[in-house]
Amino acid sequence: MTFFKKISEKQAQGKIKKIFQEIKEKRKINFIPNFWKTIANNPDTLERTWNSLQQVMKKGELSTLTKEMIYVAVSMTNSCKYCIKSHTLAAKKQGMSDEMLNELIAVVAMANETNRLVESYQVELDSYLK
Amino acid sequence: MTFFKKISEKQAQGKIKKIFQEIKEKRKINFIPNFWKTIANNPDTLERTWNSLQQVMKKGELSTLTKEMIYVAVSMTNSCKYCIKSHTLAAKKQGMSDEMLNELIAVVAMANETNRLVESYQVELDSYLK
Amino acid sequence: MTFFKKISEKQAQGKIKKIFQEIKEKRKINFIPNFWKTIANNPDTLERTWNSLQQVMKKGELSTLTKEMIYVAVSMTNSCKYCIKSHTLAAKKQGMSDEMLNELIAVVAMANETNRLVESYQVELDSYLK
Amino acid sequence: MTFFKKISEKQAQGKIKKIFQEIKEKRKINFIPNFWKTIANNPDTLERTWNSLQQVMKKGELSTLTKEMIYVAVSMTNSCKYCIKSHTLAAKKQGMSDEMLNELIAVVAMANETNRLVESYQVELDSYLK
Amino acid sequence: MTFFKKISEKQAQGKIKKIFQEIKEKRKINFIPNFWKTIANNPDTLERTWNSLQQVMKKGELSTLTKEMIYVAVSMTNSCKYCIKSHTLAAKKQGMSDEMLNELIAVVAMANETNRLVESYQVELDSYLK
Amino acid sequence: MTFFKKISEKQAQGKIKKIFQEIKEKRKINFIPNFWKTIANNPDTLERTWNSLQQVMKKGELSTLTKEMIYVAVSMTNSCKYCIKSHTLAAKKQGMSDEMLNELIAVVAMANETNRLVESYQVELDSYLK
Repeated sequence: MTFFKKISEKQAQGKIKKIFQEIKEKRKINFIPNFWKTIANNPDTLERTWNSLQQVMKKGELSTLTKEMIYVAVSMTNSCKYCIKSHTLAAKKQGMSDEMLNELIAVVAMANETNRLVESYQVELDSYLK
Repeated sequence: MTFFKKISEKQAQGKIKKIFQEIKEKRKINFIPNFWKTIANNPDTLERTWNSLQQVMKKGELSTLTKEMIYVAVSMTNSCKYCIKSHTLAAKKQGMSDEMLNELIAVVAMANETNRLVESYQVELDSYLK
Repeated sequence: MTFFKKISEKQAQGKIKKIFQEIKEKRKINFIPNFWKTIANNPDTLERTWNSLQQVMKKGELSTLTKEMIYVAVSMTNSCKYCIKSHTLAAKKQGMSDEMLNELIAVVAMANETNRLVESYQVELDSYLK
Repeated sequence: MTFFKKISEKQAQGKIKKIFQEIKEKRKINFIPNFWKTIANNPDTLERTWNSLQQVMKKGELSTLTKEMIYVAVSMTNSCKYCIKSHTLAAKKQGMSDEMLNELIAVVAMANETNRLVESYQVELDSYLK
Repeated sequence: MTFFKKISEKQAQGKIKKIFQEIKEKRKINFIPNFWKTIANNPDTLERTWNSLQQVMKKGELSTLTKEMIYVAVSMTNSCKYCIKSHTLAAKKQGMSDEMLNELIAVVAMANETNRLVESYQVELDSYLK
Repeated sequence: MTFFKKISEKQAQGKIKKIFQEIKEKRKINFIPNFWKTIANNPDTLERTWNSLQQVMKKGELSTLTKEMIYVAVSMTNSCKYCIKSHTLAAKKQGMSDEMLNELIAVVAMANETNRLVESYQVELDSYLK
């Protein structure tokens, strides 16, 4: 049981229709992924998320590839399966190789380990970090 | 109250002394950060963590800069203050500018938001992700 | 593989039987949900959880509806699928509309984003918050 | 050491200045909280977060009070101290009494407990939840 | 700013007074730790938590020492500083040595690492685990 | 879609082959669990994880049983299904009874509850904990 049905392209009206159109054009895809079809149940959330993601993920001082890999790293730390899969695919489209993904995962795992070492041992801030 | 005192360079013996020496040489620093002085209470943990971090963080298909930024992103998601500070500094030494850090934070925050949108709406895996 | 089988109503004896009876009466349902049938493997946990939930979730200064929505928000943040589903249903029984759920999700997602902005930027406590 | 200084009202220019002005007007306060002064280091993040929060937190089918309480519940689950304090204060301004806060905390704590019971016992979805 | 003041032993009345008395007797201490003085703002939460902890932490098939170490491991994973400190102290009273704590921390850190390896690589359940 | 295929025993070469052999010998099993077959995509991660786990999980001041139970407790707090299942099985092999697991789960759930009580009420460190 999901509490919301997906909004299909056929059902999409007004603001939703316009954003679905934009997603297909900007992402160069010919279908709407379930993420967008589901959050379309709240047109404001759909619009805000679409606009925010475009702003946040566009090439800046960091490449879109680096941004996608950071996205994947956060999603792995949060164990969000859909997010790991969809952003890993996005990173691959931006050029991430299998070996890069292997290295990314090693860093994510290691950071999760040392984060807990720090908290468990209650490591004090060094004076150069204060 | 911390349950373990830091092991100072003066107190360091055997395996601990050897690793403290390596840390200073490889990192080109003339002191031992509290992280290492604290986990030295378990010499096996000190040795394993030092060796693992060198292997995981060395330049590979990903640059050390990219790896440090991923480390920061995980530490932010886990809210580990010491880790955020020390790895942000490490990333800055590798060339991360303030603007790059601003962009990194925007991605981390956004990923944490959409991770929860996905879980909250129980978004179904698209067939292309299965 | 699950490590514990569910305790069916037929198998229920003593304390378990009594609580199963109470659950059906108080909740006005004619079956025992898997949550209760599973935690019944530890009758103390079953009893403590049932009594605690009744106390915590009863109408007080907050309505049961508001409490159920808070329950859902926590479950979404922890990505607990069973919990999201069962407490969303409970909130719907208390009158939560689809639009209210859409708004709830938007708040949960936004809070998860700004929580990380605060930690990532290490925002200092304002003096009025100290 | 924080990596970013707060942007004071005096330093604020252009987009930042405009948003600081809006914050003071809409929130009816005569100073800018540290959260906004800090994220102003990324004017896009400042603008997006301010606009998003206004949209998400405005009265809808849920009252602003209920939304603030949900915000607090998420922040408690994430252990974000600044967020707990500032949103608890915001909820109090909307009318949350001490007793309501006590009840909210009891629900948050209980939900965190049962979320883990569900995962630990690997409770199967009931057919009515599928 | 904390939203609730601690309830001192002098202020304690009725149910709170009775439980404070029990805590001192059962724990063989002559003061009330801040945890209890703070949650006493909700007498129901105080009573429920005190009774639940006594039931859950009492010697059973697991020793109280083992239970306290599990408590510490969870608190480390959640980065709850107060909880790490107070339960580490409780475990020490039950006989946990420094070396045992060092080993416990190594397991906690390692588990956090491999948990993320599993999620990141999306490891499939083996048939013997299904 | 998983991004990495499992490395079968037949495909295993060099370092991977050697470690697979060790796993079967040391663990006294005649197959390689999916965890190892999957992380073998990064031979360095395979080797480091295998060596680290052997060091961390070997009998020390804590028994392997106690260590496995701590592993399970962390995995439950992180909701890692594969990890809960595989380490619960490992703990059972070391002698954990159903009743011990029931008690372990009660502690994990309770610790998750009081961790949030502490954070939500912002409990101050007692002077004996400072």
